Amino acid sequence: MDIVLLGSGNVATHLAKALKAKSENVMQVYSRNLINANLLADAIEAQAIDDVSKVDQNADLYIIAVKDDAIESLASALKNVKGLVVHTSGTTDIKVISAHVKNAGVFYPLQTFSKAKAVSFDHLPICIEAEDEKQLEVLRNLATKLSNQVYELGGDKRKVLHLAAVFACNFPNHLYALANQILVENDLDFNIIRPLIAETADKVMSNLPENVQTGPAIRNDETTLNKHLGLLNNMPELQNIYQTLSDSIKLTLK
Amino acid sequence: MDIVLLGSGNVATHLAKALKAKSENVMQVYSRNLINANLLADAIEAQAIDDVSKVDQNADLYIIAVKDDAIESLASALKNVKGLVVHTSGTTDIKVISAHVKNAGVFYPLQTFSKAKAVSFDHLPICIEAEDEKQLEVLRNLATKLSNQVYELGGDKRKVLHLAAVFACNFPNHLYALANQILVENDLDFNIIRPLIAETADKVMSNLPENVQTGPAIRNDETTLNKHLGLLNNMPELQNIYQTLSDSIKLTLK
Repeated sequence: MDIVLLGSGNVATHLAKALKAKSENVMQVYSRNLINANLLADAIEAQAIDDVSKVDQNADLYIIAVKDDAIESLASALKNVKGLVVHTSGTTDIKVISAHVKNAGVFYPLQTFSKAKAVSFDHLPICIEAEDEKQLEVLRNLATKLSNQVYELGGDKRKVLHLAAVFACNFPNHLYALANQILVENDLDFNIIRPLIAETADKVMSNLPENVQTGPAIRNDETTLNKHLGLLNNMPELQNIYQTLSDSIKLTLK
Repeated sequence: MDIVLLGSGNVATHLAKALKAKSENVMQVYSRNLINANLLADAIEAQAIDDVSKVDQNADLYIIAVKDDAIESLASALKNVKGLVVHTSGTTDIKVISAHVKNAGVFYPLQTFSKAKAVSFDHLPICIEAEDEKQLEVLRNLATKLSNQVYELGGDKRKVLHLAAVFACNFPNHLYALANQILVENDLDFNIIRPLIAETADKVMSNLPENVQTGPAIRNDETTLNKHLGLLNNMPELQNIYQTLSDSIKLTLK
């Protein structure tokens, strides 16, 4: 397939490399910023462009991997192409694209991407959506080349999944950061809790989290909860988070 | 070393098996509940007792691995032993034991233990504390037999570490559970977010969490934040948690 990639951020970068590794032909990389376009295009031997009017009109697939609020203007710039135009957003409706182009779809890789770390696509959930079976088949074929976890989801379910992902990824990572803040204030190193973080995640690979909850709140251990709240007296924001999450855990007690 | 283990819960069980695997002689397992004492004692070929007066008085080490509020009464029951008496608690002061016995210490394995899952001790942080160098040496020798991550920490640092562990383990696990609640409500399976959870934890094995935060809050993406809050209209508790944690993430924005 001849593919044009619009975007040069985290999702675009990881997706481009995964496509290249499966010998897909990413012809062009578009970015508003030519330096960024070049950086990614060079890595996958594609053409870099910073003018959307230079997008090849005969590609099979156009992947818009940019910030949510920039998707629509790019879709409208692709209104004359015959190929399939998809976005990679968890929250954006397919209509934001289909309002402008003939063939619209969604190709949403459910993962946290940072430039600092390579990610394998082998088991990476890819959620696809299209408006007819023919286009869905195109996306299914591409997605299954990249990953063995392909989900055909309507927009409503995809948006809920994206919300769940914030709870399962963005919030836990922030809690790791708050833990580190507590450690650093007390001259302790983040290394000391890395095995705990790894095991906490590993445990829910084969169990449901509600069945393996540990800690003072699930034991209704008020003594420890109060000691912890006391230790946070000079960190009111963390104290509030501690109270809020402990209360929520206690709600699950029978 | 001849060891008596007091307790038969998660920490006692995992620790007993790790000691047994290193050929340490766990002579007795005490539990208030003889069935539980038997269950664990049988697994490691020890004697099961449910009467603390039957504790062997000549062991080298007594490990009290019970709920925090039950530690003191067991320590006082051991007032005549000459061996070292330790607890395994993150939050309990060493004085709770040293007030009663001659040789007191702390042997705190920093990990989340569930009966459902085996845990390797090889890299498991063990925090030790004692009141003199001779006793500390005993604990250091035992801890380094089990793990290559042994930390000598005073009580204040250990308590802070336990607090950080709640942020790094108990709270993230609860957020996984809330994510699952959202998924189940929408007929989606927890499997779909397992790779995301694994990658989120894996990312901070080689990065600091504050450097790899992703998601709508750190992008200051008000549109998505408001969409998510809207999706949680009929789950006010989750809406409150979403708002609290997103606000906290936004505080880290420069």
